[in-house]
Amino acid sequence: MSNVTVLPLGGLGEIGKNMMLVEHDGRIVVIDVGLRFPTPEMVGIDLVLPDFSYLRERARDVEAIVITHGHEDHLGALPWVIRELAAEHEAPPVYGGPLTMAMASSKLDEHRLRDVELVKMDTSESIELGPFQLELVHMTHSIPDACAVALGTELGTVLITGDYKFDQTPVDGPPADVSRLAELGREGVLLLCGDSTNVDRDGFSASESRVGRHLEEVFSRCEGRIVVTSFASNIHRVQQVIDAATALDRKVALVGRSMRKNVSIGRRLGHIEVPDGMLIGPREVGDHPDERVVIISTGSQGEPLSALRRMAYRDHPQVQLKDGDTVVFSATPVPGNERAVNETIDRLYHIGCDVITNKDAPVHASGHGHAEEVKLMLNLVKPRYVMPIHGDFKRLRLHAELAEAVGVAPEDIFQGDNGLPLRIDERGARFTERKQAGMVFVDGVEIGDVADVALRDRRMLSADGIFVVVVTIAEQDGSSVADPEVIFRGVPFMDEAGELVGEIRETVQGTLQHAASEEIREVDLLQQMLHDALAQLVYDRLRRRPMVLPVVVEV
Amino acid sequence: MSNVTVLPLGGLGEIGKNMMLVEHDGRIVVIDVGLRFPTPEMVGIDLVLPDFSYLRERARDVEAIVITHGHEDHLGALPWVIRELAAEHEAPPVYGGPLTMAMASSKLDEHRLRDVELVKMDTSESIELGPFQLELVHMTHSIPDACAVALGTELGTVLITGDYKFDQTPVDGPPADVSRLAELGREGVLLLCGDSTNVDRDGFSASESRVGRHLEEVFSRCEGRIVVTSFASNIHRVQQVIDAATALDRKVALVGRSMRKNVSIGRRLGHIEVPDGMLIGPREVGDHPDERVVIISTGSQGEPLSALRRMAYRDHPQVQLKDGDTVVFSATPVPGNERAVNETIDRLYHIGCDVITNKDAPVHASGHGHAEEVKLMLNLVKPRYVMPIHGDFKRLRLHAELAEAVGVAPEDIFQGDNGLPLRIDERGARFTERKQAGMVFVDGVEIGDVADVALRDRRMLSADGIFVVVVTIAEQDGSSVADPEVIFRGVPFMDEAGELVGEIRETVQGTLQHAASEEIREVDLLQQMLHDALAQLVYDRLRRRPMVLPVVVEV
Repeated sequence: MSNVTVLPLGGLGEIGKNMMLVEHDGRIVVIDVGLRFPTPEMVGIDLVLPDFSYLRERARDVEAIVITHGHEDHLGALPWVIRELAAEHEAPPVYGGPLTMAMASSKLDEHRLRDVELVKMDTSESIELGPFQLELVHMTHSIPDACAVALGTELGTVLITGDYKFDQTPVDGPPADVSRLAELGREGVLLLCGDSTNVDRDGFSASESRVGRHLEEVFSRCEGRIVVTSFASNIHRVQQVIDAATALDRKVALVGRSMRKNVSIGRRLGHIEVPDGMLIGPREVGDHPDERVVIISTGSQGEPLSALRRMAYRDHPQVQLKDGDTVVFSATPVPGNERAVNETIDRLYHIGCDVITNKDAPVHASGHGHAEEVKLMLNLVKPRYVMPIHGDFKRLRLHAELAEAVGVAPEDIFQGDNGLPLRIDERGARFTERKQAGMVFVDGVEIGDVADVALRDRRMLSADGIFVVVVTIAEQDGSSVADPEVIFRGVPFMDEAGELVGEIRETVQGTLQHAASEEIREVDLLQQMLHDALAQLVYDRLRRRPMVLPVVVEV
Repeated sequence: MSNVTVLPLGGLGEIGKNMMLVEHDGRIVVIDVGLRFPTPEMVGIDLVLPDFSYLRERARDVEAIVITHGHEDHLGALPWVIRELAAEHEAPPVYGGPLTMAMASSKLDEHRLRDVELVKMDTSESIELGPFQLELVHMTHSIPDACAVALGTELGTVLITGDYKFDQTPVDGPPADVSRLAELGREGVLLLCGDSTNVDRDGFSASESRVGRHLEEVFSRCEGRIVVTSFASNIHRVQQVIDAATALDRKVALVGRSMRKNVSIGRRLGHIEVPDGMLIGPREVGDHPDERVVIISTGSQGEPLSALRRMAYRDHPQVQLKDGDTVVFSATPVPGNERAVNETIDRLYHIGCDVITNKDAPVHASGHGHAEEVKLMLNLVKPRYVMPIHGDFKRLRLHAELAEAVGVAPEDIFQGDNGLPLRIDERGARFTERKQAGMVFVDGVEIGDVADVALRDRRMLSADGIFVVVVTIAEQDGSSVADPEVIFRGVPFMDEAGELVGEIRETVQGTLQHAASEEIREVDLLQQMLHDALAQLVYDRLRRRPMVLPVVVEV
């Protein structure tokens, strides 16, 4: 019996690391391979990827990877996925819009993955991928070239929206292709997997082009320098900042590596236009009067090493902010970044800057459609089945409620979870047996279980420190041949009188004697005994539990 | 020349750990001794106190400690301040309202500090404290017994507002004593130090008594069990939950240690009234039909070990939440807690609960006055000088702008900082030389510099782990007498072939030979050489910088 199975490996019950597998006739197309940024509890972790072990097992069946747009939460895991699939079998081809593929290419380059087939697709094309017919549908979002993915099968079309809003007046290019969405709906959409990011916001999202007007208004009131911070990939926003600066006769300096990189890619592909002589280098900012300069900077999320954060902490090599400068946050904090953003803002106030956020003036517009847009999508596409994606459990629930509100039968709406496959065949749709899914940590370039163990260790180390005791014993009789070395790191206590160290040495001697009387000579066992005795002693004395690491050296 | 100097040791440029010293004629009164909760970067730290080294130096000059109200950010550091002042000289007496002193007493008991003089004051009293005349002025806030502190001196009154709102219809007791504030204003307020927490919100704050009505409305729509979470010290809120439950014929269970403790203190002092037979134990929840139960729980901030968090993660010993239960957040996240709160909410949705927050219905009212109330305070008190307190730099600035807006001359408004004394004498007011101020970490019961070092270590350990190499050398000639032991913890790498360990051993041998050829035999120096060589090797191979800890044992 022919069937289509969709398996989300990320993006459900969470915000970020979006990844979806669509399987038909034994062949798999992967839609998006995103990542997440770690929370502070994930000590020392650089990135979080979806656990895609299941995809690795199925490496031979992967037809293609399709990327809806160039944001990290949709594209960021590509190098790791490519590397692992190539190791198992071969790297599948990657499909997407021209800007998306340019960004994918730059990312793969950084990881020295050069032999990957990147296929730039136009939204007018339709490509056969094994048993699937692939088509990209033009959408609007906070990055150019955002698309919905339509995967035609003999049971009907699976439509994955990607991130979208219905912006009727985008800054550049046409609005979302509602006409094609409606047509797909008429032809028969089997399953709609729709973005849930802003389902909790009423009405329609504001148009991106509205932001430019407000930026110009805010700029016109500023007397000193202006710093605007935004996502570097929000190329239309950068365009609008440049337009406002041009209108007010200010030069523009781009600060931050990814800002310069994205503007350069955007210019090359014609998404951004900069008048000649408009751009100045970060070092040249001082050569121009304060009221003739706009700086566009990374760091809108308060990221630790970002340009704006460094400016706020007076630690930027080129730009020194001062009393009278105005910093405009043309972005809102991603959930979880509120504290880092607020800290940055407060440092800016401390310097004497004025700070303008979206609360003070509409200098930002979200790239995700609100509740009415989600309903419009449902009504355009008229799907047989609905599975909300891109959202924590709350948003998935609210999206399901919206689907019900526009008339989808409750039994046709599936609130899924990462790793939970939804199988659709002639008998209907239902969840089937769970596959492995979850988080994989990236730490440097390594991924996998090693990092999980290391992470547990680090949590322990970070909570209470470490305590190393080196015990040197004679190989012949197990007797101690040197005073134990006792080293604490990250354990706050004062032992000026050396009392605790004295007790530790006594405990070591006692344990060794006990071991000798029991004729225990194995180093592993000795270390275990020492661990237990010393951990108890340290807890009794300090009321804390540092990692206890006894090392037995035989000489 | 007679003068008054105020020295904030906490609460400026930050939210939390409020502490203010007022000095006159060589005598000091301390207003509030608060604490802060650590951010995730403060690995393993339990609490953050103001650095009160300066107060310790002046221990002999401390006349009294006055506490405005019983919240942790005003009262929480009391045990540490008392202990240190007692060690230097003697514990000063502590003044405050009856509930505040009951909470102080309970806190000191926990720290086994029993011989402290706690003086319960009425707002009608005026007490001579050395050169000061102390008076408490009744205010309204999210805890009963909140007061402003008026310290009369021969130069005029220093008025510290504490936390306040002008609630015209409080749940219990009279509104804030505007009449006495106005009178103090007429008599002459030298300096107003006013709360800045909500200066960024327009208009007036909502009355606490409005919340009860909305709680009842929300409750009346619930069919299953109801869980309400709020701050345990918000006794009037708890009262209103109990009232709403009573009206709808539901029993109430109190869950969470601090909730039970505060309700018990509140009942004893007559701040809360519970009808007979209304309360049931947490274990009895299951004995009543779902629609007849309200649970009042701690955990409104998503605190890791709180009752609500444990319920959300299905880990609470007595209460198991389920599909159809409704959880009402009758509190908003304190800045910095947004993520923890959102995680808790999403786990509740995952279980199938409905969640009601202040965004869905007005089930919370802030305890801090908004901009119009701050202006009203300024107009009532008509201070000669103004110094905003309780706020990050942004809020201090906005408060200063409000003061200017109501007619205070800009040169009479002082935007201060922790550690920056403001001296007022006949010639005027000005900042003088900075004193030591900042954060002190509490980790277990220890405080002080030890913890700072430990914290740096822990940050390093948590970022990249630790790597211990034990080298055993002969005392006679410094030659290695056993293979070096190599131990990694928290460093993610696989060394199945033992390659890295092999290289490490070679590096150790090389370093020892080099040291021998240079006739270096000192253990400290050897360890330093090994550290440098091994840190470089590990960085070259792993591209990370774990803490490198070489241990040289001589036998």
